[in-house]
Amino acid sequence: MATEYSEHIESKDKQPRTARGLKTKRKLLDAAALEFGEKGFHEASITGITQRAGTALGSFYTYFDSKDELFSALVRDMSSRVKSHAASAMTEWQDALEREKLALEAFMTFAREHKEIYRIIDEAEFVDPDSYRSHYEETAKRIHERLEEGSAAGDFRGGLEEAHAWAIMGMNVFLGLRYGIWSEEKSAVQIAEIASDILARGIATDKD
Amino acid sequence: MATEYSEHIESKDKQPRTARGLKTKRKLLDAAALEFGEKGFHEASITGITQRAGTALGSFYTYFDSKDELFSALVRDMSSRVKSHAASAMTEWQDALEREKLALEAFMTFAREHKEIYRIIDEAEFVDPDSYRSHYEETAKRIHERLEEGSAAGDFRGGLEEAHAWAIMGMNVFLGLRYGIWSEEKSAVQIAEIASDILARGIATDKD
Repeated sequence: MATEYSEHIESKDKQPRTARGLKTKRKLLDAAALEFGEKGFHEASITGITQRAGTALGSFYTYFDSKDELFSALVRDMSSRVKSHAASAMTEWQDALEREKLALEAFMTFAREHKEIYRIIDEAEFVDPDSYRSHYEETAKRIHERLEEGSAAGDFRGGLEEAHAWAIMGMNVFLGLRYGIWSEEKSAVQIAEIASDILARGIATDKD
Repeated sequence: MATEYSEHIESKDKQPRTARGLKTKRKLLDAAALEFGEKGFHEASITGITQRAGTALGSFYTYFDSKDELFSALVRDMSSRVKSHAASAMTEWQDALEREKLALEAFMTFAREHKEIYRIIDEAEFVDPDSYRSHYEETAKRIHERLEEGSAAGDFRGGLEEAHAWAIMGMNVFLGLRYGIWSEEKSAVQIAEIASDILARGIATDKD
């Protein structure tokens, strides 16, 4: 969680100075995720968020200037939580393929537990386009770095480009939508294995 | 284009009876794509659309009851145009892999020429969730059918599931966003080759 808070320091929203303040801000972000996830940005209200959080209206304005600012903070927060959730799942892996599988499995699990994430990130395209773009650019950058590490380790082919990272991110996002949010007819492990198999050998017949 | 119009007959919006009526309705849909693409659903207006189309306000109400109804018709229209654009590009192909490459290349080209498509389909998640879902479910279904044909022809492995289709659709959607909408630093052919190479052999090193 340390990385999350250090990211908040750099962001525009106001950083709590005490443990209690951190806790209040966390409550507001969690309440905002539910409020925005359920009602969407336009219907969501600051009082709806403080009521869900069980905090006074004044607490809101201690940390955020507006609904827009809270929304942007929430998108950054979700983006960094997805990142740290995936990172914590990738502590033990045998090779780079296994690591990608663990990353997708962690993302699927996170999405199932935080079903509002798609609606919030997707609505950022309209409410806060810069955060939307940053979320995907940074995610693709991390995947690309892992691909290059995998190539260096001899697990992946050489010459894997940014476009390969975008292809993998797209796979993961759509599998998460279909099998994490819309239905859970398959387990996160099953879906991660299908994606991993595509990365391992493609879908063509072996022609040798 | 025949398939497009036959789809419209089944839809809720009113179907023109004359060639001139078809042309007017087409003008309204094209104008709506620009208006919604530029301003988003909430800021877009019916008068803005009829002005762009160069039609009288009355013509609008001949074919659509409301801005919502036009938006839904537009999502279905874009979905069916993507479908027919891809279908027309896939008339000549050597094997199933080549066919997927042509489908992505056609999608990238279409997205570059109709940059508003992402914003409109993505906004449907909020404005018209059923159309949003149908668009992706139908696209995945078509890809899955092609995968099964490819397996039957011996080009693809057996056992390719719906999840494989969702993985491929996700790759295509994100590659289209990054290299079709956000920048055109690589050609549609280059991107389609990268994706095709992933489907052909994955990204792992050959371990034999």
